Amino acid sequence: MPVLSGIHPVSEALRARHALERVLIAQGAGGTRLQEIIDLARVAAVPVRFEPRASLDRLAGTAAHQGVVALGAAKKYAGMETATSSRLVVVLDGVEDPHNLGAIARTAHAAGAGALIIPERRAAGVTDVVAKAAAGALEHLPIVRVTNINRTLEELKKEGFWIYGLDERGTELYTRAEYATPTAFVLGGEGKGLHEQVRKHCDLLVRIPMAGAISSLNVSVAAGVVLFEFLRRQ
Amino acid sequence: MPVLSGIHPVSEALRARHALERVLIAQGAGGTRLQEIIDLARVAAVPVRFEPRASLDRLAGTAAHQGVVALGAAKKYAGMETATSSRLVVVLDGVEDPHNLGAIARTAHAAGAGALIIPERRAAGVTDVVAKAAAGALEHLPIVRVTNINRTLEELKKEGFWIYGLDERGTELYTRAEYATPTAFVLGGEGKGLHEQVRKHCDLLVRIPMAGAISSLNVSVAAGVVLFEFLRRQ
Repeated sequence: MPVLSGIHPVSEALRARHALERVLIAQGAGGTRLQEIIDLARVAAVPVRFEPRASLDRLAGTAAHQGVVALGAAKKYAGMETATSSRLVVVLDGVEDPHNLGAIARTAHAAGAGALIIPERRAAGVTDVVAKAAAGALEHLPIVRVTNINRTLEELKKEGFWIYGLDERGTELYTRAEYATPTAFVLGGEGKGLHEQVRKHCDLLVRIPMAGAISSLNVSVAAGVVLFEFLRRQ
Repeated sequence: MPVLSGIHPVSEALRARHALERVLIAQGAGGTRLQEIIDLARVAAVPVRFEPRASLDRLAGTAAHQGVVALGAAKKYAGMETATSSRLVVVLDGVEDPHNLGAIARTAHAAGAGALIIPERRAAGVTDVVAKAAAGALEHLPIVRVTNINRTLEELKKEGFWIYGLDERGTELYTRAEYATPTAFVLGGEGKGLHEQVRKHCDLLVRIPMAGAISSLNVSVAAGVVLFEFLRRQ
């Protein structure tokens, strides 16, 4: 995992929206420039941790880190053209739990998806936790990180994709829907489902029937159910 | 959540295999009787944590806890008759991750299962973490905890159940298998699959086809794929 250290390199990485797992600030360090880094990290949804200066020294391999170290993400992201050249892509509308993101990557790859598209903000990035939960799938499945999911769905549509959103309020059972190709499945965040604007960008909203008293599945389980039904039909 | 405190109550609860989430030992405490509790907890697969004495005081509501407090599990377990009177049960052969156990409970309930059967040893028990991941399903789905999964499968067979094991080396695709009722699905632990003896107790081993380079799904995702295919056929 790449390690950045020093105020300037870390600020620049945050401004350029490089994939960062987290920012570490030395305990007791302070000042306006470190505060600015903390603010930038919040905007970029990168977690900030305060740790003993000795930990930062060890990670940076030097004491000249000015009280700030950033850990890079476990994987580089792919470009949108990787997604549009696939027959099947999975789009996540704000999945926040890294275990879920990892399990979805594993599932998407196993179901034959050519890319996983995730938003930059208010969502899990591809960190070591995600890589572990993905159980090797990140070596094979390109991840595309985008700034605006709605714009991405419009782009996919222009490229001929049919967009299927998974939603509790979906009009069609996932087992009844006809899936046209190339296909994009859109899944919402834990406990929140799809955003209103995202719903509007879908060609069809499908739902999984629930036999019991609860209204939804874990998002990675739901991904598996729908993607493997899609695969079964091929 | 029930709280036990003191050497004798905690030892007895561990010996009787009561459902415990964890055992807390006061930092700095020691002695042969506490060591005995630590050994009992290991045998019963109950996690042990060392915490400041003040935390134990607060949890026990007293300082007279002799340096040990145990937290009870979030849910009482059901009897085997609850499982045998169902049309569909899910049996876990050693799932260790509480998030997976919770997600499987949620999925099993959503797919109409009447009970979830879990082993007592080398597996996650029903703790608060599980309850949270189950998102309310534990209020509805009875959990049966058994000492021996093989004996449980024999018991289910005697009651007329057909046993389907999910296994990477399964002979039949899960989409091709005929599922007879009453039905039991058996799922193996993370990264290990079904134990040899458990495999032998299955009427049929089914597998999920993998389109990519990895050989298996997360166990809770696999549970969803197979259970919802079963539900689709009903």
